[in-house]
Amino acid sequence: FRHYPAIPYLLKWLFISSVIGTCIGIASAIFLITLDWVGNFRETHLWLIALLPLGGFAIGWLYMRLGKSIEAGNNLLIDTIHQPQEIIQFRMAPFIYLGTLLTHLLGGSAGREGTALQMAGAIADQFSKPFRLNENERRVLLIAAIAAGFGSVFGTPLAGAVFGLEFFLIGRLRYDAILPAFLSAIIADLVTKLCGAHHTVYYITIVPDVSALSILYAILAGIAAGVCAATFSRTIHYIGSLFKKYISYPPLRPFIGGLIVATAIWLIGTTKYIGLGVPTIVQAFNEPLPSYDFALKMAFTILTLAAGFKGGEVTPLFFIGATLGNALAYIIPLPMGLLTGMGFVAVFAGATNTPLACMLMGIELFGHQSGIYVAIACVVAYLTSGHTSIYQKQMIGEPKH
Amino acid sequence: FRHYPAIPYLLKWLFISSVIGTCIGIASAIFLITLDWVGNFRETHLWLIALLPLGGFAIGWLYMRLGKSIEAGNNLLIDTIHQPQEIIQFRMAPFIYLGTLLTHLLGGSAGREGTALQMAGAIADQFSKPFRLNENERRVLLIAAIAAGFGSVFGTPLAGAVFGLEFFLIGRLRYDAILPAFLSAIIADLVTKLCGAHHTVYYITIVPDVSALSILYAILAGIAAGVCAATFSRTIHYIGSLFKKYISYPPLRPFIGGLIVATAIWLIGTTKYIGLGVPTIVQAFNEPLPSYDFALKMAFTILTLAAGFKGGEVTPLFFIGATLGNALAYIIPLPMGLLTGMGFVAVFAGATNTPLACMLMGIELFGHQSGIYVAIACVVAYLTSGHTSIYQKQMIGEPKH
Repeated sequence: FRHYPAIPYLLKWLFISSVIGTCIGIASAIFLITLDWVGNFRETHLWLIALLPLGGFAIGWLYMRLGKSIEAGNNLLIDTIHQPQEIIQFRMAPFIYLGTLLTHLLGGSAGREGTALQMAGAIADQFSKPFRLNENERRVLLIAAIAAGFGSVFGTPLAGAVFGLEFFLIGRLRYDAILPAFLSAIIADLVTKLCGAHHTVYYITIVPDVSALSILYAILAGIAAGVCAATFSRTIHYIGSLFKKYISYPPLRPFIGGLIVATAIWLIGTTKYIGLGVPTIVQAFNEPLPSYDFALKMAFTILTLAAGFKGGEVTPLFFIGATLGNALAYIIPLPMGLLTGMGFVAVFAGATNTPLACMLMGIELFGHQSGIYVAIACVVAYLTSGHTSIYQKQMIGEPKH
Repeated sequence: FRHYPAIPYLLKWLFISSVIGTCIGIASAIFLITLDWVGNFRETHLWLIALLPLGGFAIGWLYMRLGKSIEAGNNLLIDTIHQPQEIIQFRMAPFIYLGTLLTHLLGGSAGREGTALQMAGAIADQFSKPFRLNENERRVLLIAAIAAGFGSVFGTPLAGAVFGLEFFLIGRLRYDAILPAFLSAIIADLVTKLCGAHHTVYYITIVPDVSALSILYAILAGIAAGVCAATFSRTIHYIGSLFKKYISYPPLRPFIGGLIVATAIWLIGTTKYIGLGVPTIVQAFNEPLPSYDFALKMAFTILTLAAGFKGGEVTPLFFIGATLGNALAYIIPLPMGLLTGMGFVAVFAGATNTPLACMLMGIELFGHQSGIYVAIACVVAYLTSGHTSIYQKQMIGEPKH
């Protein structure tokens, strides 16, 4: 019998995963708790939204003056995994954290996964030197960090682990970081929960038995989600390039963007489409919503993020997907809650090209009973979104078909 | 807005997946129902076991005379995916089907996944020409067939789909067949269930909250499963090569093997370790079993399959894993049912190097509540089993660490 070289490797990465998992778990907990507080504060102090343009200017100015090297955000993480360069500056973590809180405090429509990933990446990369990791181990460390950040901020460690393995390359999954990704995500999620951060619980109450017809309906829902995701990705990049083309002074971009968003909120007279939008997501599982909800949320999110506000795209994509699914219930004869859950993860799958992570997320959030529906929707959305992505630096490892 | 080239692709593969999914689903149902009948018949006519050597001779003779081209079985499928050559002969399906039934009727210890995969591959490949598939599409077709065979025979379509994508290459997963794999597996599983075939239901009653300690325990269980899987893979190949080295006339190998197995059954006086062993697997979830059960099942299975009997390794691996997990409950303080479930999928993950499929299988069979434990066990077992595999033709796409 041979020796087992896997054991020292396992011990080493168990140690590293425990360290970064704990740090990232604590960071995610602080982020979730303060973000919750900030969102509630805004809802009771709506005059804050008038300050959105000024807040945008402040974020833009800060990043221009002190954050040029880390402005690329998620794309910088992806680049570093593909071609490890300098250590990611730690300031990425406080910058994205404060930028996101300010965005949410003043009423931008944004998410939190970008923040979680960037905090995680910036924290973990500081250990590259003390742990004396070589180039390839540093890649693994960053993948594990992203798994931990994603897993802990959404409370879905398995989806986080697969997301870390999946997200930097379209169409291929490599297993060399599989152990660190799973351990870090599970430990970070545990730490976040121990710190007292809570995750929203979603219920799909009725899941019909699978039949030939229901498979077809699920495919249709997946196509709608994929088209919606591709539209989101393309439009956000297009609007972003417009902002860059016509406004050369960076802080002015979020200023103008904030002005438009704040005015729009004032005109339509509701805060439903700003912030994370979690209450509306929960509602979508239980009652019919206006069919245009997803389009309005898309417009608000694209304006907010393309203009240069901070946060992430994922929770808005959940909102867009859930309300899209809810709207599809008007025409597709599957239960509304199920369609909402399918849209929730499928639009995200199409926009980030991570079908397996999204499928697992659906199972972790809604239970395994809806697994087949969620799987079809995610895979079809992944396919129909084409080679678009919210992450511009995501490389194509394999054509989708 | 661009066109959506994914739609014709989707329609094409929905059609192909429906056709092969239906055929494979029916084949799996017939196989499951007759296999069940055969196993029950043997249990009430134990004198049949005395015929095991003769049955072995018959199988060996048939394959020698008429089945040389398809004897490689699963390895032929893997080869064909890597390097598409001639169409797989349809006779692979009836040969493996009858060989497996005879093996089970006469008391060999074997499984059914090999049979399901080979029937599926042989059936699906017949459509390569009428559907005018090119080389790459034929690869996708075979992956989809394997997904359908696996998903329908175990009633776990999501695990089947990921298994099809995962199993021919260690350490890497390619997404170019993701849609056909999921659709075929889901359709085949649906058809098998509609045909009235039943799958065993396993329950894990107690799943403790995840804690730092329970993560460590899960890692330990994963290591045990990985070592057990590597032992199985190495020993079965070694014993197989001994048979080939010392017995040059092929039909004589299963004759001798059958003689040893039948004598051993007679000596220990129980049929617990032959056939599929499903009753013992179910028992393992609920009550403590002798700690040597897994070792005996391993010995019986290795002798049966290395000698040239037909079937598969997977259900015996479930048995070995479940009883190993059950035995671990004597030393690892996690609930017995949970350890049984973890061993069930983790030994399989280590032996086939398909950690994500096994994790999904665990979730589909036992529910998402035990997902984190199952995931840790599968990933750790995958890692510690090293670059061994029950499939000798599985290529290394990526070193494990």
